[in-house]
Amino acid sequence: MSEVPRRAPTGNALFRPRITSAITEAVLEELAAHGYARLAMEAVARRAGVGKSALYRRWPSKQDMVIAVLSEFSVPLADVPEGVSLREDLESVLQALHDWLTDPHVATILPDLTAEAVRNPALAEAIRTTIGEPRRALGTAVLLRAVERGELPADLELELALDLLAAPVYWRLSVRHAQLEPDYFDRLVEHLLRALDARPTPQGQAHHNSVA
Amino acid sequence: MSEVPRRAPTGNALFRPRITSAITEAVLEELAAHGYARLAMEAVARRAGVGKSALYRRWPSKQDMVIAVLSEFSVPLADVPEGVSLREDLESVLQALHDWLTDPHVATILPDLTAEAVRNPALAEAIRTTIGEPRRALGTAVLLRAVERGELPADLELELALDLLAAPVYWRLSVRHAQLEPDYFDRLVEHLLRALDARPTPQGQAHHNSVA
Repeated sequence: MSEVPRRAPTGNALFRPRITSAITEAVLEELAAHGYARLAMEAVARRAGVGKSALYRRWPSKQDMVIAVLSEFSVPLADVPEGVSLREDLESVLQALHDWLTDPHVATILPDLTAEAVRNPALAEAIRTTIGEPRRALGTAVLLRAVERGELPADLELELALDLLAAPVYWRLSVRHAQLEPDYFDRLVEHLLRALDARPTPQGQAHHNSVA
Repeated sequence: MSEVPRRAPTGNALFRPRITSAITEAVLEELAAHGYARLAMEAVARRAGVGKSALYRRWPSKQDMVIAVLSEFSVPLADVPEGVSLREDLESVLQALHDWLTDPHVATILPDLTAEAVRNPALAEAIRTTIGEPRRALGTAVLLRAVERGELPADLELELALDLLAAPVYWRLSVRHAQLEPDYFDRLVEHLLRALDARPTPQGQAHHNSVA
């Protein structure tokens, strides 16, 4: 996602990545501590040790700042390595989702933004296009690989399948605030493989309609 | 849930149900408009046309008032009629969940309370015991009926199954704020029946491992 510099950075440019990292951290800290509605650019600048102008040079508004920082943090986390089977890929997707949702900042920020989005359609749209859709595109790639390998039917219901991957973990961790049993992921993957009508492949471990 | 009066109500008691209904409506309106954090007993009393003492006679605190009103509104909605098959029961459960989540008050209140609960463990616990658990008990009854009818395996993973019922609809409507396709419930039920390893019964319509 980062641009390759065309020539060696000089002067202030040397400090820019470090400043951006300090701002990113400050945005996440302030969001987690105070919530979106009460987040002040002033407080972010103070915590990052920069002037407010350093923020406004990067983003024209609070919403742009929050969405950019969250997107940069959240989207790469959904980019899981390709495994040998759908089963392995689903385990990676669920583990990555778990790591994202249990990140101390995200665990507080995400429910808060979800609530805020109900009253703020522009924020809802920004979350959808810069966090939701890129993450779903990565999930789509995982599912389409499995279709190509013959592990999922070609008429896979993609929208429903993507919901089924993300929803149970979000519901358990972020809505119910409940624990995961030690074998939770294994058992959830079994249920998902059945739900998606997965077929076993020679190299994979997917059991079709196995009794869990 | 309401107590049967032992003798005919006299005097003010005649007005109590009407007052309680006005308070319930006022709590839901104020919660939806301003959120839990900014909800004031004073504003609820004013909107309901009662004194603050009428609220404190019923509930010792704002949290108790909110939880009692929401529980009274939310739990009966999960009590669906018994159908002839698991398929029919799941359709009823999903429809009831949809009606709850798209209620104009609940659609705003629930994400707000979910966010608030992250910072307020006492509120999280109250939501869990008076709304989450009673609703899950009703879902449990539906699933255990299907086990008794032989439509679900006796070693059904109850916690996971309950999550799978509620999570996709919540994720779609309350987190993603996305539309449901016209045949969404039918297709979700197909996926859930497969996920739960449902078996057909003579009187029911559940297809085991059907290709959707």
